[in-house]
Amino acid sequence: MTERTYAGTLTKENIDEKVLIKGWVQKRRDLGGLIFIDLRDRSGIVQVVFNPETSEEAIKIADTVRNEYVIQVHGQVVKREESTVNHDMKTGTIEIIADQIDVLNKSKNPPFLIENETDVSEDLRLKYRYLDLRRQALQQTFKMRHQITQEIRHFLNNFGFLEMETPILTKSTPEGARDYLVPSRVHPKEFYALPQSPQLFKQLLMVSGFEKYYQIARCFRDEDLRADRQPEFTQVDIETSFMTRDEIMDMTEKMMYHVMKEVKNIEISLPLPRMKYAEAMERFGSDKPDTRFGMELIHVSDLFEESSFKVFSGTIEAGGRVSLLNVKRQAAHYSRKDIDKLTDYVKVYGAKGLAWVKMQENELKGPIAKFLSDDEKQGLIQQAKVEDGDLLLFVAANNRVVFHSLGALRLKLGKELGLIDEAKFNFLWVTDWPLLEYDEEEERYFAAHHPFTMPVEEDLDKLQTDPGNVRAIAYDLVLNGYELGGGSLRIYKKDLQEKMFQSLGFTKEKAEEQFGFLLESLEYGAPPHGGVALGLDRIVMLLAGRSNLRDTILFPKTASASDLLTDAPNEVSAEQLKELHIMFPEE
Amino acid sequence: MTERTYAGTLTKENIDEKVLIKGWVQKRRDLGGLIFIDLRDRSGIVQVVFNPETSEEAIKIADTVRNEYVIQVHGQVVKREESTVNHDMKTGTIEIIADQIDVLNKSKNPPFLIENETDVSEDLRLKYRYLDLRRQALQQTFKMRHQITQEIRHFLNNFGFLEMETPILTKSTPEGARDYLVPSRVHPKEFYALPQSPQLFKQLLMVSGFEKYYQIARCFRDEDLRADRQPEFTQVDIETSFMTRDEIMDMTEKMMYHVMKEVKNIEISLPLPRMKYAEAMERFGSDKPDTRFGMELIHVSDLFEESSFKVFSGTIEAGGRVSLLNVKRQAAHYSRKDIDKLTDYVKVYGAKGLAWVKMQENELKGPIAKFLSDDEKQGLIQQAKVEDGDLLLFVAANNRVVFHSLGALRLKLGKELGLIDEAKFNFLWVTDWPLLEYDEEEERYFAAHHPFTMPVEEDLDKLQTDPGNVRAIAYDLVLNGYELGGGSLRIYKKDLQEKMFQSLGFTKEKAEEQFGFLLESLEYGAPPHGGVALGLDRIVMLLAGRSNLRDTILFPKTASASDLLTDAPNEVSAEQLKELHIMFPEE
Repeated sequence: MTERTYAGTLTKENIDEKVLIKGWVQKRRDLGGLIFIDLRDRSGIVQVVFNPETSEEAIKIADTVRNEYVIQVHGQVVKREESTVNHDMKTGTIEIIADQIDVLNKSKNPPFLIENETDVSEDLRLKYRYLDLRRQALQQTFKMRHQITQEIRHFLNNFGFLEMETPILTKSTPEGARDYLVPSRVHPKEFYALPQSPQLFKQLLMVSGFEKYYQIARCFRDEDLRADRQPEFTQVDIETSFMTRDEIMDMTEKMMYHVMKEVKNIEISLPLPRMKYAEAMERFGSDKPDTRFGMELIHVSDLFEESSFKVFSGTIEAGGRVSLLNVKRQAAHYSRKDIDKLTDYVKVYGAKGLAWVKMQENELKGPIAKFLSDDEKQGLIQQAKVEDGDLLLFVAANNRVVFHSLGALRLKLGKELGLIDEAKFNFLWVTDWPLLEYDEEEERYFAAHHPFTMPVEEDLDKLQTDPGNVRAIAYDLVLNGYELGGGSLRIYKKDLQEKMFQSLGFTKEKAEEQFGFLLESLEYGAPPHGGVALGLDRIVMLLAGRSNLRDTILFPKTASASDLLTDAPNEVSAEQLKELHIMFPEE
Repeated sequence: MTERTYAGTLTKENIDEKVLIKGWVQKRRDLGGLIFIDLRDRSGIVQVVFNPETSEEAIKIADTVRNEYVIQVHGQVVKREESTVNHDMKTGTIEIIADQIDVLNKSKNPPFLIENETDVSEDLRLKYRYLDLRRQALQQTFKMRHQITQEIRHFLNNFGFLEMETPILTKSTPEGARDYLVPSRVHPKEFYALPQSPQLFKQLLMVSGFEKYYQIARCFRDEDLRADRQPEFTQVDIETSFMTRDEIMDMTEKMMYHVMKEVKNIEISLPLPRMKYAEAMERFGSDKPDTRFGMELIHVSDLFEESSFKVFSGTIEAGGRVSLLNVKRQAAHYSRKDIDKLTDYVKVYGAKGLAWVKMQENELKGPIAKFLSDDEKQGLIQQAKVEDGDLLLFVAANNRVVFHSLGALRLKLGKELGLIDEAKFNFLWVTDWPLLEYDEEEERYFAAHHPFTMPVEEDLDKLQTDPGNVRAIAYDLVLNGYELGGGSLRIYKKDLQEKMFQSLGFTKEKAEEQFGFLLESLEYGAPPHGGVALGLDRIVMLLAGRSNLRDTILFPKTASASDLLTDAPNEVSAEQLKELHIMFPEE
């Protein structure tokens, strides 16, 4: 019996060999007595020829096959004539002269063509995901996902880490995102929760003395979905004992170096740049700056404190600031209408408006120009390094709104104007995060990362008195403006963890009820520990050059958390509900 | 700054070196002015000595530490005097003379000693799982689990497989075990199910043309738990296209060869033995025979068809059989009382009783001996190869009861009598399974494996007429009497899959509603495919020599599916329930 050969691996080396190939019909053509079939398998495509010398029976069968039929072909590899060589195909210098063909399975005409570029609606592609996944672009993405995962493992295994599995059926500790819940059949009115991350378990593994843990871990968040969120996602989850912040960051960036080298053949330069959170906000209006281009925020409040232009001076007086982007040499390309659209855009981020001036013929022009004094104009030109043809876009508001609106506007303009070098991979550490963030609605502080993050030691005394200004020993890894993930050192002493819960407004009882097991574990020899967690889906997206997280997940869900292929979630039987001791409220 | 060294790695090679070690206090002893501390980290244990030359401050600290404190020690490696060498310790030829000691964290006195052998209740150990996991036996088990997992990946990666992640939030298709359900917040009254296995998704990946898939996959079954079951468990899940049954079995056993070689340094002999299901039942009364010892079932119905002993002849007339175990040379060691206990044991498996005779002084003796004719006795002695001192234990019943009761009794006696060589690793394939099993209660057939298993071609016409006798192209891998897992070729044509659902009593509508997406996918060029799934937890249990699956899972659940450490499942807030559109029935 001939062994099967992968179609895409055939080259001139195989000429004259008798081969057996199996796969899908990519295309069939009849050309005056000749039948050509492009046969596709996971390795690629090869051309099969049925010529007058092929047996009648084989030709008869070849005549019936259609796109996406599954076939096997016995035949002989031959050199193509020079004139018919196909340089776009890896196997384009050879073809197979068929002896025999068998149809292993038929195919209906697929609802869309299996081609790399497609304008079919995503809903249809998700319903027929098994066909969508046949496209080479997705096949390549999942090969790369496999490769990235294995290289991460390879690196961590060599570093002495153990891969360990933590539970999926866990306890609900609603601090952070919303939990997915699982009703218990054995314990009426009780629920498991699917983990938002293995955070508590990996800390407990440190208390257990394993010292070096990792897991390619599935995580779950029942949140309203944005383009780059999925109800379940995969995290490269790492925790270590006895390592310092810098040792963990160093190890993490070496891991990324290894992945970039092995998967993309790119050597990134180490150590990776670091930027403090406060600086990232000031310069880029973002806690995950895309440093592939400039156009940084320029803060000009000092120019306008006394300004007669009350929109500016009033904002400053109220504790806000005036900042701008200098859009170099674009004055002529942005009409009033264009700028109106940008104004609508920043309003989403809370800005009341977008003031603007253009530098044209060496003069600042535009609706607000007349309100600015000559000194103010000169100051602007100096501070914003204004040259002829530049467009200045101002937001005057409180810090938060200035950062968010100008940060977002910067990214939008960077893309629109083609300022971003898509070939670049700009990694960046953002450090010195705030430990706590005040939530106006709930009127209490929330943990900026999670409640187990270690505060900077010299800020410890502010935990009660000035919680908003306590810094965390936390670090986020950013790539091209996306947060790949982050980490921190963790609290490993019980009294500090209790103080942390207090700062979050927990009563002693609530802390005990939700996190009693963690607090208790810290009393039995918990080592200093910390770690990091990176989003695998996002790493794959960026390295594979995809624009959507759904392209990196085999069976993704829609924005309403549905699986269009299997039609999940769905209704279940009354019997199932009864066993789980639950029912629905009356309408 | 000195870099930290792992305690357990220190040897004579390190003598005179200044080292920094970090870890837990395993033991502290005061011996006349000297303090000895055994420091433990993930690599092992080393002895630290505080002698009169150590600084007063260090001695003062050393004096305060207790078991399980986390400390770091700066010191110097020295050779132990010959008389104090500890041959039980890997580091026993050296010790550390301490210069400095720091307490990184304290520990309360643990609720149980961190020792390999422990008689503490399992419930207490599970509540303090993070302490239980510090025991060397468990540390070793999870290191081995890591190693097994990596070697499986290593093998499959080299074989061209891609590791791929299928969803955890899936559709409920209640055919088989009970699903864990997850209420949807976005879609009221609808539920996701946690997967019992990735079966359907891996088949869809074959339809997608990936050809070689694997996953170390978490699976979930909401069943009543036995000693060797957990609500969530991990499966080495494999699927391939275009491979034959024998090619899949061959690859699987090569994978196990690789794991045994790399992890246990044992070369198992390939190909693995194979046995048909029917033969396994006849010889061992089990579909997962432990072939490490003999004492096979002996069937003697032919001797007793006409017997005047009605218990035997009556059973045979009613369509049952008479079978026995010959317990060699144990006649003198089993009293009536002992045999009464064995009788109680087989009753659990449906046997009405356990008849017995003993061969003593070359005569068959015992309560039923007087009912047996001389011919019957002679026949017995020949067929059962009875020698002096043998004990024969009979069950007369229908096939099912005979197999189950004698199969179980064989295992029990094999263990009791020490017939099992615990050093052996006896792998075995069990093949030619029945496709369907009749369920008396539900009055319909169920799939013996799952409804996607390919029937043997020559049995296809029996699918409607004689479903109970259709064989499946299915194979189970057995190790030492445990089912490691199994696989099959799958149905890849729509009409056959529809017939299969009919055999299971599905209406067209039910088949469509539950599995419509699968049926549809088979119409679009589904390749011939098949695979295998092995229980990782069980592989770890057997290779690590553990007797309990809970020892192979970091945070296992109890028999009532509770996590005693975190106290999951637990009650959740009314707000959470409201968001999920569920409530509880009135009491």
